[in-house]
Amino acid sequence: MEPKFLCFGELLGRLSPEGDQRILQTNRFSLTYSGSEANVAMLLGNLGMDVSYVTKLPQNDVGEAALRALRAHNVQTGHVLRGGARMGLYFVEKGMSARTSNLIYDRVGSSFASISPDELDWDELFRGVTHFHFTGITPALSDACAQACLDACRAAKEKQIVISCDLNYRAKLWSVEKANAVLATLLPYVDILLSNNAEIEQLFGIHTENYEELADELKKRFGIESVGTAVYSIRDHGTLLDWAGVLSYKGQLVQSRNRYTIQVLDPIGGGDSFSAAVLYGLARQMPLQECVDFATAASVLKFTISGDVDDITPADVQKLLHSKDFLNR
Amino acid sequence: MEPKFLCFGELLGRLSPEGDQRILQTNRFSLTYSGSEANVAMLLGNLGMDVSYVTKLPQNDVGEAALRALRAHNVQTGHVLRGGARMGLYFVEKGMSARTSNLIYDRVGSSFASISPDELDWDELFRGVTHFHFTGITPALSDACAQACLDACRAAKEKQIVISCDLNYRAKLWSVEKANAVLATLLPYVDILLSNNAEIEQLFGIHTENYEELADELKKRFGIESVGTAVYSIRDHGTLLDWAGVLSYKGQLVQSRNRYTIQVLDPIGGGDSFSAAVLYGLARQMPLQECVDFATAASVLKFTISGDVDDITPADVQKLLHSKDFLNR
Amino acid sequence: MEPKFLCFGELLGRLSPEGDQRILQTNRFSLTYSGSEANVAMLLGNLGMDVSYVTKLPQNDVGEAALRALRAHNVQTGHVLRGGARMGLYFVEKGMSARTSNLIYDRVGSSFASISPDELDWDELFRGVTHFHFTGITPALSDACAQACLDACRAAKEKQIVISCDLNYRAKLWSVEKANAVLATLLPYVDILLSNNAEIEQLFGIHTENYEELADELKKRFGIESVGTAVYSIRDHGTLLDWAGVLSYKGQLVQSRNRYTIQVLDPIGGGDSFSAAVLYGLARQMPLQECVDFATAASVLKFTISGDVDDITPADVQKLLHSKDFLNR
Amino acid sequence: MEPKFLCFGELLGRLSPEGDQRILQTNRFSLTYSGSEANVAMLLGNLGMDVSYVTKLPQNDVGEAALRALRAHNVQTGHVLRGGARMGLYFVEKGMSARTSNLIYDRVGSSFASISPDELDWDELFRGVTHFHFTGITPALSDACAQACLDACRAAKEKQIVISCDLNYRAKLWSVEKANAVLATLLPYVDILLSNNAEIEQLFGIHTENYEELADELKKRFGIESVGTAVYSIRDHGTLLDWAGVLSYKGQLVQSRNRYTIQVLDPIGGGDSFSAAVLYGLARQMPLQECVDFATAASVLKFTISGDVDDITPADVQKLLHSKDFLNR
Amino acid sequence: MEPKFLCFGELLGRLSPEGDQRILQTNRFSLTYSGSEANVAMLLGNLGMDVSYVTKLPQNDVGEAALRALRAHNVQTGHVLRGGARMGLYFVEKGMSARTSNLIYDRVGSSFASISPDELDWDELFRGVTHFHFTGITPALSDACAQACLDACRAAKEKQIVISCDLNYRAKLWSVEKANAVLATLLPYVDILLSNNAEIEQLFGIHTENYEELADELKKRFGIESVGTAVYSIRDHGTLLDWAGVLSYKGQLVQSRNRYTIQVLDPIGGGDSFSAAVLYGLARQMPLQECVDFATAASVLKFTISGDVDDITPADVQKLLHSKDFLNR
Amino acid sequence: MEPKFLCFGELLGRLSPEGDQRILQTNRFSLTYSGSEANVAMLLGNLGMDVSYVTKLPQNDVGEAALRALRAHNVQTGHVLRGGARMGLYFVEKGMSARTSNLIYDRVGSSFASISPDELDWDELFRGVTHFHFTGITPALSDACAQACLDACRAAKEKQIVISCDLNYRAKLWSVEKANAVLATLLPYVDILLSNNAEIEQLFGIHTENYEELADELKKRFGIESVGTAVYSIRDHGTLLDWAGVLSYKGQLVQSRNRYTIQVLDPIGGGDSFSAAVLYGLARQMPLQECVDFATAASVLKFTISGDVDDITPADVQKLLHSKDFLNR
Repeated sequence: MEPKFLCFGELLGRLSPEGDQRILQTNRFSLTYSGSEANVAMLLGNLGMDVSYVTKLPQNDVGEAALRALRAHNVQTGHVLRGGARMGLYFVEKGMSARTSNLIYDRVGSSFASISPDELDWDELFRGVTHFHFTGITPALSDACAQACLDACRAAKEKQIVISCDLNYRAKLWSVEKANAVLATLLPYVDILLSNNAEIEQLFGIHTENYEELADELKKRFGIESVGTAVYSIRDHGTLLDWAGVLSYKGQLVQSRNRYTIQVLDPIGGGDSFSAAVLYGLARQMPLQECVDFATAASVLKFTISGDVDDITPADVQKLLHSKDFLNR
Repeated sequence: MEPKFLCFGELLGRLSPEGDQRILQTNRFSLTYSGSEANVAMLLGNLGMDVSYVTKLPQNDVGEAALRALRAHNVQTGHVLRGGARMGLYFVEKGMSARTSNLIYDRVGSSFASISPDELDWDELFRGVTHFHFTGITPALSDACAQACLDACRAAKEKQIVISCDLNYRAKLWSVEKANAVLATLLPYVDILLSNNAEIEQLFGIHTENYEELADELKKRFGIESVGTAVYSIRDHGTLLDWAGVLSYKGQLVQSRNRYTIQVLDPIGGGDSFSAAVLYGLARQMPLQECVDFATAASVLKFTISGDVDDITPADVQKLLHSKDFLNR
Repeated sequence: MEPKFLCFGELLGRLSPEGDQRILQTNRFSLTYSGSEANVAMLLGNLGMDVSYVTKLPQNDVGEAALRALRAHNVQTGHVLRGGARMGLYFVEKGMSARTSNLIYDRVGSSFASISPDELDWDELFRGVTHFHFTGITPALSDACAQACLDACRAAKEKQIVISCDLNYRAKLWSVEKANAVLATLLPYVDILLSNNAEIEQLFGIHTENYEELADELKKRFGIESVGTAVYSIRDHGTLLDWAGVLSYKGQLVQSRNRYTIQVLDPIGGGDSFSAAVLYGLARQMPLQECVDFATAASVLKFTISGDVDDITPADVQKLLHSKDFLNR
Repeated sequence: MEPKFLCFGELLGRLSPEGDQRILQTNRFSLTYSGSEANVAMLLGNLGMDVSYVTKLPQNDVGEAALRALRAHNVQTGHVLRGGARMGLYFVEKGMSARTSNLIYDRVGSSFASISPDELDWDELFRGVTHFHFTGITPALSDACAQACLDACRAAKEKQIVISCDLNYRAKLWSVEKANAVLATLLPYVDILLSNNAEIEQLFGIHTENYEELADELKKRFGIESVGTAVYSIRDHGTLLDWAGVLSYKGQLVQSRNRYTIQVLDPIGGGDSFSAAVLYGLARQMPLQECVDFATAASVLKFTISGDVDDITPADVQKLLHSKDFLNR
Repeated sequence: MEPKFLCFGELLGRLSPEGDQRILQTNRFSLTYSGSEANVAMLLGNLGMDVSYVTKLPQNDVGEAALRALRAHNVQTGHVLRGGARMGLYFVEKGMSARTSNLIYDRVGSSFASISPDELDWDELFRGVTHFHFTGITPALSDACAQACLDACRAAKEKQIVISCDLNYRAKLWSVEKANAVLATLLPYVDILLSNNAEIEQLFGIHTENYEELADELKKRFGIESVGTAVYSIRDHGTLLDWAGVLSYKGQLVQSRNRYTIQVLDPIGGGDSFSAAVLYGLARQMPLQECVDFATAASVLKFTISGDVDDITPADVQKLLHSKDFLNR
Repeated sequence: MEPKFLCFGELLGRLSPEGDQRILQTNRFSLTYSGSEANVAMLLGNLGMDVSYVTKLPQNDVGEAALRALRAHNVQTGHVLRGGARMGLYFVEKGMSARTSNLIYDRVGSSFASISPDELDWDELFRGVTHFHFTGITPALSDACAQACLDACRAAKEKQIVISCDLNYRAKLWSVEKANAVLATLLPYVDILLSNNAEIEQLFGIHTENYEELADELKKRFGIESVGTAVYSIRDHGTLLDWAGVLSYKGQLVQSRNRYTIQVLDPIGGGDSFSAAVLYGLARQMPLQECVDFATAASVLKFTISGDVDDITPADVQKLLHSKDFLNR
């Protein structure tokens, strides 16, 4: 059976000053459309997967423009709900050296955050679906959103759909305590957990050195069989990023053969790209080593692309995998 | 005593696609800062008046950027409150011929709409103030905002501050019935009412042909002494606008000597400019004829300027008043 | 059965100088993706129709970007062939008053023009399709393209698919004689012919005053049952356009109730929009009067939108149909 | 002998806000390079004439960029002097309807205005030259510039070079009295005078109705044999311009067969284009009627092109001359 | 008593090519408003200080736009003189690696450089002022400007206003000899001298290794009690900048605890920011260590911001001071 | 005799996404005009050489715009042929770190590639010429182009014109085998061969360590007397480029005294700049060491400039040669 993905989450408008300007300095902004789950969906679409997105958007031309962005990235929008007060937004000011990025959320009262679980008929939505993806951001938005995630997990589990979740802890949305309590109800449904070394430490108090222990611990706590982790650190006065991937899949641990050292054009969405590419590789039944290498390379590319979305084709990943210039073994 | 204005209302971010693009077509937007009362304040500042603005803005760089816009226009910001969830926004897509403008409000849950009347100490705010201006938009935003307007009117009346109000009826914010009920509590405090021929008909059921009767009627109903009205109509398949001003001041009626026929670059804020310029003329004790001529010319210029704000100097108005090319007596 | 459209033709890159600049003056261009049949497909997608596009694009990122444009407009791209030498391009310099538009074709040797009829398996492509649309541009590109059109018409006719053709005579591509000869082999398959008053005169030597006679004549010559015609003229020193629609459907003639007088932002694609909207109305079985009114209004909007594509939603058409300001009965 | 033009005058940087913005509103400007005499030279270059420019530019990259602009327009720069304090500049804010254009000179102390007559060896400069062009702006800049004009006229006259002068009276540079006094020393050398109906009235007190009388009068006063005049008026609330040409050549008077009614994109340089195109036509020995028709059409195009320079090819003029849509006989 | 700053100097228009273009390559420039003393004033305004600017600007819209920039940055403009010939300008082309920045002054004959000392009534201007700031650029512009500085220093000294001066030696404006002679008349009035290690060496022949000796020497020569010095060097083939601060305040010497290694987006104005932030810290009576740390961090941020002005809020500085990623102890 | 260069090759339109965008992401492109031989010609023009370009461009405004670019760079265009189907184009997407540049040729069927050798009268074209330059790209385009190169070489040799050739092997245009075969007929005419270390290895199987041996080998094989070689390598994860020059001139070998380590803004055209600057130095009879140092510095600057063309003045090279900051001896 061909894999068919369904991703569920908010789709936000992203407002960024053009060029190197600060929010304080300019009146010129780009308005693009993204969000963690949408970024995953759009990379899956870019890679040629059959993928559909479920969200709620206001019934106006801004909502319409957001649909266009999804479709352009090969994501099906037939299940998108329309209505509610507004599109969630966020402002992103790109940082530079000592001036770090500035991210301002403006998602209060959005159509998606105000969704009612009743609006979502998961039996209908999951027709033909083989993979369901959500992140820790959605349950953080509202109790209704958390309930919708739980509903979705239950329905998916019944239909033996593979469930993946990217932790994506956002301190601006909820406390570690609240996150732990809510996620404890959702993680037992999850087959594949995605995360990065920074948030694993923050949420679970584990500083990842031994990824086998980490995988064992997550299996013990939540029964999670597989974990994909992006491992990174900053170098050379903030001018370079070290990036590598680790995948523990049903007891088997592999690390990306390459550890990349790169300049960063836009850091947002790097983790989403790693998640999407891991899911892509697993769904296409790549050998694990190939899968983590592919996911690491695909997400490395994201850091060199402006915007949240990893605007690549599979050929771009192959080009990087076969290049010799950017590796730091 | 030198006039000192205080304007009270929301300050919104305005998002407009660049150039001739539709919201559906582009990712490039300008983000400027405006709002009916703020537009009045900024034109007063442009004309050299001592003017201060009272609003509430979120404590982030978008709020900071909005303050910069006020200050650039010579408006004092020392009384602006900071805090709350978000800046109200609106999207404006410029129309063209058969494709009319598209305006999408995104002001739900804004810092200003969520203001508490207790945050505003009108005795303190009105120190040294001679003129207070608000519009019918603010009481439409929330009950608290309506209460704040009432508090302000009472305090201003006590201090013998001249109170002006621009009706600015917005069907997207409240019904005619609700507007009538709430305005009925505020208009009795108002000394100078500002409006245009379209909304006078819509709100009060009066089609303005005889402005003396209109002024009499408003005096009878609300005790309003003075009324400034912008009179307009569309011509030549929507390519031209006819624009003129009427001022009824304490029983004396004058009409602008010129009736302008103009092309419109950006229609938003034309009425605000007429209001501000009438208030400026009266505060500077211009002869009534001169005052209405000045206000008409100043607001005509707004239609030729992009953005809500009438970005002019007094010299620009004089230039138009002494030009011979654009009149349509 | 729900209508399902398949459009067949080239997809070109359109290079236009930004703003009001001439090609001679600037280095800044917009690159968008369009073409007569693609414009029809994209408007059908914008209006919510199930529509698929068949073309051939080079296997590079420019081809990929073109696919994105189709998808953004809700057009399915699963049948697009990839390969060949290059994407066809054209340069468009927007005219202004006495300086008329400048259009430079650069489509020689394109992947589509070099297509082989064998690459197209029409039985497969037409699975589930109810409506097939092509234009007189495709057979003008190469003998192979003309053959492909003929193959498609035969296959469609067999499957009782409704066949529509927009004449779209382009003097830069072929002579009137060649066009007449080739079209004579194709038009007998056509159910719905679309055209405008200028090219009907040029190709068939008929100056349309009496549209019933025109329809009769086309039925006699080619057996065409239905004809949609956009009727236009230029007014006021080139500053305004008069635009109306006529539809002769199986012997019944209706004219649009409104004749619009509008300013033109971008003239290209106006006829394509009329065609697409007529096809949409007929496929949705609108009453004929409603259909021609809708198509006339939808295509009027195109003239106010930059680019070839009528970037509208159905709501935009309704807004214009219920507006009173832009009609010229 | 092939005509070879030499034009003498300042070359200024022109700073204009992008799009529809006012100087007050934006930080984005275009910097292009122009000036009345340079505009003439650049149109001559565009039309394929052999033309050289004499001016003085500062020895920095702004001066270098200005040279590039001349060369791009096919104007030879081998005689341009380098040095001095600065490039003269001017700010141009495009007007719109009731808001008229705003032009701010910033040319004080420029390298050209500070030129010394000794720097110019006219014998050397005029080698091979058949036509010399200057305007009334240059003698207005400084006494040295006036002296340079006189030197040039004397040297040109000796060499039987055809001397043309565009009056170009600028009230911001000198008074009518001063202009009359200085021009009185220069005009006796002039063979072809170029002007427009507004400035002829302003400078010589003649309201041009009878162009033969005008030509006679100019011949009587200054011995000028030939006069080219652009005749214009504003229509329809400033939205349209009427434009026609008159040429009195050695006693023979012709008027352009077409009188154009056009929308104006950028008014600056229209007169320069008329002058250049008259000189071109005469130098190429066009029949007089053809010459004035060509010049009128070429200058009409300028009004539809942004910037001072008439960025056209000869083909553009032919296209307009053979078009039927924009004439107002 | 709350500190109230008055800064005195030119306000220039800065013309920079957009993006990475050279002056030779592009017609698109940004026009912003800055100048060493204005940069200090605008950072003081950004930090919330009460600050006023004294300069002279031409009476046109460019001058008006410059006023807007000051006000946007919270700088009072009530004392700005209007008139004179022109606004001083300068062109800045951003360098990149081996291609160093290109700065072209175009300030000859500016309104400010042509100021008369009589236009400035320092008794009036200094009403309520506690801190006066000027730089070594102003006396370099003209004898009148030097005289105005001397007048200001005398008046300030009488009123016990704290006087600060940034050396800002500009070789393009005057020789070291002339600078030494003129500064010798001004420095005895100065309480706080600001400078950087490069110009201290150039002007006074001291290579700063021992800052105590430097402070002693400056005290001996000019009686200056306090000196703030920005210490920098270039690293890694010009890709990184090392930056630290030293403050000798009334005999007490402190160095910034952090030495930053950063990438540079725009080098201009870094020293001005250090000066402004030192003055801010001292005026707010920060402990010396905190003051120099704050000033170092605030000026580090400037290098990451485009334009001359340090467009930050106090929160940005705190964010950097508490970050761990960009330090190089 | 003053050197007079003639360069022969294609002139292409280069389409690049603005800023950091990918082709997939944006509709905004810059269209500039370049090509290896044209880049050489334009740098020669920038450096003040007398240089003419021979190519063929279509007879439309895109071809006209390309001529303007040549002229702006001081290149004579009197010999450019007009006609043919189209201008060759190429798309360049700037890479960034792990995402390498993407170059898509779109030059099939261009006017130049379709040139007929008969259109070129080399006796006429070479009148007064002292130096002829072509590259290995031209013979790769078509047999006719290869023939034209051979014709030119023969004619040039007869006239004792110095012939230079930049190898410029392009794997996208022909195989190594084909290249070897064709170049073997051309290289015997060549006096000065230009190349870089990467392609020398690829084409001739020589990894350049000993440049004397290399020069000897080339002399043996083809009789080439002089060879200029740019030697480079990538460093620090692709963030830096090492660049140096070697020149073997009639048996004498010199290496650039500086080896530069630089950041790269735009890599295209670096080799062309080295070639042009070597030819310039030799033509001006610079001492060899000075010549190779100049050429190395001039080409280093290219890497810091956007676009293919080395948009510099001689002063820029001098500035770099006398700077101390960017060298890596």
